[in-house]
Amino acid sequence: WKCQVTQTRLMSVSVKADADVLAPSDTFPRRHTGSGPKDMQAMLDTLGVATLDDLISETVPASIRMAGPLKLAPGVPEHQLLKELRAMASENKIFRSYIGMGYYNTITPPVILRNVIESPAWYTPYTPYQPEVSQGRLESLLNYQTMVCDMTGMQIANGSLLDEATAGAEAMTMSHNVSSSKSNKFFISKDAHPQTIAVVQSRALLQNVEVIVGDHDTFDFQATPVFGALVQYPTSDGRVIDLETFVKRAHAGEAIVSCATDLLALTLLKPPADFDVDIAFGSAQRFGVPLGYGGPHAAFFATRDEYKRQMPGRIIGVSRDVTGKRALRMAMQTREQHIRRDKATSNICTSQALLANTAAFYAVYHGPEGLKQIATRVHSLAKILATGINNLGVGKVDMQTPFFDTVKVELGSSEKAAAVIKATEAKGINLRPLGSAVGISFDETTTTSDVEDLWEAFAGKKAPFTAEEVGKSVDISIPSKFARTSQYLTHSTFNSCHTEHEMLRYIYRLQSKDISLAFSMIPLGSCTMKLNATAEMIPITWPEFNSVHPFAPVWQAQGYAKMINSLRLDLAEITGFYDVSLQPNSGAAGEYAGLLCIDAYHKSRGDKNRTVCLIPTSAHGTNPASAVMAGMKVVTIKCDNNGNIDVVDLKAKAEQYKNDLSALMITYPSTHGVFEETVKDICSLIHSYGGQVYMDGANMNAQVGLCRPGDIGADVCHLNLHKTFCIPHGGGGPGMGPIGVAKHLAPFLPSHPVIPCSGPEAVGAVSAAPWGSASILPISWMYIHLMGGAGLTEATKFAILNANYMAVRLSKHYKVLYTGSKGRVAHEFILDLRPFKASAGVEPVDVAKRLVDFGFHAPTMSWPVPGTIMVEPTESESKAELDRFVDALITIREEIALIERGLVPRDSNTLKNAPHTTDVVMAEKWTMPYSRAQAAYPAPWTVSSKFWPTVSRVDDVYGDRHLVCTCPPMESYEEAIAA
Amino acid sequence: WKCQVTQTRLMSVSVKADADVLAPSDTFPRRHTGSGPKDMQAMLDTLGVATLDDLISETVPASIRMAGPLKLAPGVPEHQLLKELRAMASENKIFRSYIGMGYYNTITPPVILRNVIESPAWYTPYTPYQPEVSQGRLESLLNYQTMVCDMTGMQIANGSLLDEATAGAEAMTMSHNVSSSKSNKFFISKDAHPQTIAVVQSRALLQNVEVIVGDHDTFDFQATPVFGALVQYPTSDGRVIDLETFVKRAHAGEAIVSCATDLLALTLLKPPADFDVDIAFGSAQRFGVPLGYGGPHAAFFATRDEYKRQMPGRIIGVSRDVTGKRALRMAMQTREQHIRRDKATSNICTSQALLANTAAFYAVYHGPEGLKQIATRVHSLAKILATGINNLGVGKVDMQTPFFDTVKVELGSSEKAAAVIKATEAKGINLRPLGSAVGISFDETTTTSDVEDLWEAFAGKKAPFTAEEVGKSVDISIPSKFARTSQYLTHSTFNSCHTEHEMLRYIYRLQSKDISLAFSMIPLGSCTMKLNATAEMIPITWPEFNSVHPFAPVWQAQGYAKMINSLRLDLAEITGFYDVSLQPNSGAAGEYAGLLCIDAYHKSRGDKNRTVCLIPTSAHGTNPASAVMAGMKVVTIKCDNNGNIDVVDLKAKAEQYKNDLSALMITYPSTHGVFEETVKDICSLIHSYGGQVYMDGANMNAQVGLCRPGDIGADVCHLNLHKTFCIPHGGGGPGMGPIGVAKHLAPFLPSHPVIPCSGPEAVGAVSAAPWGSASILPISWMYIHLMGGAGLTEATKFAILNANYMAVRLSKHYKVLYTGSKGRVAHEFILDLRPFKASAGVEPVDVAKRLVDFGFHAPTMSWPVPGTIMVEPTESESKAELDRFVDALITIREEIALIERGLVPRDSNTLKNAPHTTDVVMAEKWTMPYSRAQAAYPAPWTVSSKFWPTVSRVDDVYGDRHLVCTCPPMESYEEAIAA
Repeated sequence: WKCQVTQTRLMSVSVKADADVLAPSDTFPRRHTGSGPKDMQAMLDTLGVATLDDLISETVPASIRMAGPLKLAPGVPEHQLLKELRAMASENKIFRSYIGMGYYNTITPPVILRNVIESPAWYTPYTPYQPEVSQGRLESLLNYQTMVCDMTGMQIANGSLLDEATAGAEAMTMSHNVSSSKSNKFFISKDAHPQTIAVVQSRALLQNVEVIVGDHDTFDFQATPVFGALVQYPTSDGRVIDLETFVKRAHAGEAIVSCATDLLALTLLKPPADFDVDIAFGSAQRFGVPLGYGGPHAAFFATRDEYKRQMPGRIIGVSRDVTGKRALRMAMQTREQHIRRDKATSNICTSQALLANTAAFYAVYHGPEGLKQIATRVHSLAKILATGINNLGVGKVDMQTPFFDTVKVELGSSEKAAAVIKATEAKGINLRPLGSAVGISFDETTTTSDVEDLWEAFAGKKAPFTAEEVGKSVDISIPSKFARTSQYLTHSTFNSCHTEHEMLRYIYRLQSKDISLAFSMIPLGSCTMKLNATAEMIPITWPEFNSVHPFAPVWQAQGYAKMINSLRLDLAEITGFYDVSLQPNSGAAGEYAGLLCIDAYHKSRGDKNRTVCLIPTSAHGTNPASAVMAGMKVVTIKCDNNGNIDVVDLKAKAEQYKNDLSALMITYPSTHGVFEETVKDICSLIHSYGGQVYMDGANMNAQVGLCRPGDIGADVCHLNLHKTFCIPHGGGGPGMGPIGVAKHLAPFLPSHPVIPCSGPEAVGAVSAAPWGSASILPISWMYIHLMGGAGLTEATKFAILNANYMAVRLSKHYKVLYTGSKGRVAHEFILDLRPFKASAGVEPVDVAKRLVDFGFHAPTMSWPVPGTIMVEPTESESKAELDRFVDALITIREEIALIERGLVPRDSNTLKNAPHTTDVVMAEKWTMPYSRAQAAYPAPWTVSSKFWPTVSRVDDVYGDRHLVCTCPPMESYEEAIAA
Repeated sequence: WKCQVTQTRLMSVSVKADADVLAPSDTFPRRHTGSGPKDMQAMLDTLGVATLDDLISETVPASIRMAGPLKLAPGVPEHQLLKELRAMASENKIFRSYIGMGYYNTITPPVILRNVIESPAWYTPYTPYQPEVSQGRLESLLNYQTMVCDMTGMQIANGSLLDEATAGAEAMTMSHNVSSSKSNKFFISKDAHPQTIAVVQSRALLQNVEVIVGDHDTFDFQATPVFGALVQYPTSDGRVIDLETFVKRAHAGEAIVSCATDLLALTLLKPPADFDVDIAFGSAQRFGVPLGYGGPHAAFFATRDEYKRQMPGRIIGVSRDVTGKRALRMAMQTREQHIRRDKATSNICTSQALLANTAAFYAVYHGPEGLKQIATRVHSLAKILATGINNLGVGKVDMQTPFFDTVKVELGSSEKAAAVIKATEAKGINLRPLGSAVGISFDETTTTSDVEDLWEAFAGKKAPFTAEEVGKSVDISIPSKFARTSQYLTHSTFNSCHTEHEMLRYIYRLQSKDISLAFSMIPLGSCTMKLNATAEMIPITWPEFNSVHPFAPVWQAQGYAKMINSLRLDLAEITGFYDVSLQPNSGAAGEYAGLLCIDAYHKSRGDKNRTVCLIPTSAHGTNPASAVMAGMKVVTIKCDNNGNIDVVDLKAKAEQYKNDLSALMITYPSTHGVFEETVKDICSLIHSYGGQVYMDGANMNAQVGLCRPGDIGADVCHLNLHKTFCIPHGGGGPGMGPIGVAKHLAPFLPSHPVIPCSGPEAVGAVSAAPWGSASILPISWMYIHLMGGAGLTEATKFAILNANYMAVRLSKHYKVLYTGSKGRVAHEFILDLRPFKASAGVEPVDVAKRLVDFGFHAPTMSWPVPGTIMVEPTESESKAELDRFVDALITIREEIALIERGLVPRDSNTLKNAPHTTDVVMAEKWTMPYSRAQAAYPAPWTVSSKFWPTVSRVDDVYGDRHLVCTCPPMESYEEAIAA
């Protein structure tokens, strides 16, 4: 293994104790940024520039450079900053929460907490676009889908959505797409969670959908036809409703029925599929995922097989590799925005893979019997509570309507309800206010003494009976009409790992199949895969951040409030915007929220027709998908031969649509990896036509500290905190997509129906929780405060240096597409592989898979330009790592040359047969036109540290043709073993 | 992968909320114990017994069975117990400590904390006796040795000792062994740490060595010849002394010179080797290992090349494998107790591998420049503090004598010193009391504001100057006489991984080479490798446990006091003893402490000649080594053909030595894996001859809840908390070896010179810290309280069931040596491989290495019976895992049969060539008489989850002949790459 010789700060030769000598030993920027001064100089020498600032001057147009440094606090050393954040976190009061509403206390099994949520092997990998190096997390996500299908009874499920409320909105959109009804109305039960209703409403806003919130018992589907109907089972306030009748009535009215539901309840209740619903969705949070003040949590989403091509989100499917071995990969990607763009089923991109995996492992750990036992206890305690309250006469619980975990206690007046809430708060307990009643939701952590504490709080004195005593006479059975009789989680995976050793080894077995940042760089263009430092990750599993209910009174969450406000101000400074909303919980959600704000702004000025959104062909697929979701008409703008926006075309289109122009969506620096010189002019042009400029912040890592979207002229910009601001990718999520906006858009920033967080002009809610996935915000806060303004700026410069260094080294072997006016790329660059198709029959996928043999995850393939790969090294990679990757690509170019010269067949060579598994290279008979060693050890470092893929190249077409999206039956495992 | 179908508790069919329904979901015993009721029944069926209790009755002699259940609290669920322990931990007050004395605050780099200390891949592996599956941690330990050699300048270092004080005692013993002097006197400087002096004194006690504590400046080596002299550099109170003169004087008197020193100081000070010392030792704690109230910390120990065969402890050396590839392994094991027994260099067995690795990674992370910078800052702050104190006139610091990090402030009277200590305590600061002075030791965490706080505490008001201002005029250079000029840590390993990404990947690269419990069972006989559950491990890195100085006033450590006392009582109940001492920090240290107590007891009764220790031939090597260390004469007792102690021989020897008989050391159940029926008689016999019975607790896992050493008749017993009580092995440490004693021995339990923890008759100190490695005690506390008495007892039964199940399955293929009277084994058993030597040329090592191809760590080889292997499954392994291991051994037996039948050559077969690396199985030319697939995939599970060793069979002899115990020069890495 060839190690890099980096430099720590050079020793002071001073014999005085000056400030440099007294600096702490755990300063962070030199740990985050991959190269020290010596390597920097070597790279600059390769580039032929004298200083890093010279390079930046050649790269970033002077017209947009910031005049001065970022006004951020200086970087704080790791140890001290962790102490400061801990002090802040301790201002959160951890009350016992019985608020419910889709958020429940849960016990993350320690073996999963430490070895999944807290493990870089699980939190740093990328979305499994390269299945050969992702079989571990693909298996876990398949477990997740199997669990969702089993629990809901539905036929097909996806690998998670962002949260329960947005899943409800997705259900509405999908219902619209599949319904035969001509109605533009959508019914939602008033007994759904209020945040689900709010997000559905804000999603409907621009889609010409009228949302009717009503009583599911009485709504007349004949009188008012709707294309879809959404109901919650059990309801937000806990009732197990008669789904059967409802679905029949809705179906009779041609409505597609969506059912928000609860996985734990479904261990005891009949699954929604038994009542013939079309879509079932909900949150998998209570399967071991901490509350975290609202997220991140995985939403689940399942439907009928016939609707699978209309389903939003990623779907993991079973396929085979070229040797016929079972292999997993993402299925039916043609539904998704990154391929289908404005015709996609949804704009969703990042989902909640890490949390879906957590929930799946939780189900594997407990198994069907264990889950049922948890549910039975929760249900029993709720029954005991209700019985006791009625017995005490301190409130009234309707015992005729079945409930699972949530008890609604009628107190007769809102004054009495308030008094009870006050009494419980005094005991460190939160209840849900429900007018003249209170709601009490139990969960896995609830105990008999919790029940007794509640009785005491209600009665003002100890109850004359214990919970166990009451339990002896309480009937905990579920009425047969609702009682589940069907089996679930019968697959061996859910019945094998109930001890900690088995669980630990299963987790390790899976992770050993995947490439994460803990193994090597992941040089994805457009997805900034930088260091997710441990000091940034540590706080997110502190109980002080982990255990707060999102709807707890804000005075209990002052630690969060301080951290969130601090981050908000930091991001506003970094982007040059007036305000920032932290509600959108993904980049795509940020895009949608930003477009909502733009639309609201136009309408506030009486501009009701501005619905055209200009989008360059080079844009991320999410852009057109989000625009469509915001009810806009997408008009495409050409790019010129240099990959820049064709300003002539832009001007023409702006002129053409001048009365209807709502916005231009651009990415900066461009998705082609170039700082376009014309960006300010472009913004002015759009403004001059009355439009607004939406900037996609995917490439913000090239801007921080050098230039600012707000200064450039953008009106709104989302930030992928999981790219630029160090939230790890988690194998496909969580992410966070806050938006920064100019002053005129600030009044429209998202609000929340439960926790007020905005003004009266707000566009509504875009996520289930007021601050999105709040519990991962400390990661970005830590990053910014560890680095300080100077450190952040330096990091950006290194990101640009690293990309240019690689581009220059590679330019002797490959054509680098698109550079700026001085020949420099931004923080990423595109390598043109198109010529090799003709010369050697080699396609980007061949290069990508061959890189696996070198121990590397492939760069982004064929986007934004087909036939190319796009490389983004980030600032966190060392020169040694960059050189290894460049050397790999140079070796591959030499291998291509051998094919070009006819020395190796076009259809069987090291590229076409890549990646090479151990099975392949130890075949008893070797028939390849190259040696086994050439197959497996194409570079010196692979000799001392080799990543072995566990499957050969995966057959995508086979998998889509034979779609299987749940764990295969046990026989196929046995076959695999026998094979 | 064939998964096990375990059972959770079966669902209650009750419709009432009874106690079973209301039980929490995170009860622990079913997570710890590998099999549920269904698998238990299947195993019992195989054994042909009806119930688990029937099996236990057949196994454990009725005469020793406990009458009733353990009187321990019931098991508490994980979540709740973590909360309870956290509450206890929060009673520890975290003061800023400047006490020093070998313990310093340090910053564990978060990337190392999370990915080494908190990673099961690092904390669960066994000692690297099987080098082919241990190359990762062997490399890290080699880094440790390299670091120690570089910093001290010595030629050879070991892979760690237990703590600095015991390392001092080892230095004394070694000096005695290598010195040409005929003196029996040992000099130790009064300026060494008091705990080092105390431990050396107690070690000398029974070795006929007279310890002279004196002034190293004035001691007259001519007038009083000594065989060795120990000095501290810098001294305990901080002075950098004139080592050169001292060493010359001591050498002139034929004394071997040992130097206790400090790795951080040595980055600035001339290394001890420059002054010609013979031995250098100290603690590596301040290299990133938390204070932890005294441990565990790695001690280092280095000496001259000529003394290497007399050096105590494990030594990692460089060798090669059969293919000629560089490979690491433990060198010169013939020095050690497990081979050399009573002639070993020391009784040390467990060392502190995990902490040595932590320190080594810390050095890798900071590199030479980084370490020097830390040291320079610490030194500068100490200088600034001293200057300020003198300037303020609030105390007097001698500025003429050089110091590194520790300032002694003379205050004129002990009253004034006490007043200052009171003033600082009021500010949450601890100083070291030194009579009329106070000691202040700075460290990596100290800041300028800490200095200013101290000035304020001394002066009673803010100082009129800042630390930075004083710094400007302070000369921080080291006087040239002491200033280090030689280089250190120049190897590329210490100059490559200074960014977090490089560090993370280095850690992962190494761990991927090793088998840990996170991959498969480690079925070692005599070393109980059970589950180290996450809930047990989580508390040990809480700051509340991690950040307490061992010599902080006890009122600040009440959380520790409560936990320690609770554990003490638990262990007393479990062992049936009157009291327990938690000071011994390894099993060997426990043995030594126990023998000290026995000796003191005899002497207290006037029995001065009782120095004979009877030890059966089947004993662990540590037993005779410890006896020798305690100045005893070892007399060996035979075993009969059934592996039991030969009672006739025992009686004869007891009779023969009746006047000199001190003790019998026995292991129970025996090291042969049998509950000897005669054990009570044996104890009575020894007692009747006036002897005491020492029980080795290595096999305590077969006793807990079933029988108790105290009841059986033992007078003292050590407990390997790292075997029976879940402290992980850490790749060779840490361990803990508390001893339980009967009432008559209790007065003699160890004491401590700084923190009183015993009565006046105590035998002295046996470890550096009063409660040994206190910070890992929460692991055992958690285990006991998670399991409760019933859970612990059940676990023991399953340990016995699992062993018997395996033995029965294997008995059809191998001879199982030694069983009890009813044909049952205890918790482990021996398989006889001796016949295969003749029949097939197969030796135990061949079977052991072949098991690697199946993904298993080998059992204990050729101990206690040469030519055998000993298997201990523990209760934590599932039936599925047991079956896999049994299946592997059955397949190996079939492979042996092929050789026996002449179908495969004796010198080249799957066993002789094992283990098979990827390099071997993908060789371009295959010449083996079996297929590549047979080599690599001998069992179905290896197809889906394969562990690939990174080296072929390691050549031990070559390595010992060409001893290299530091990182090889860079060229050899390059060669390895080129190869």
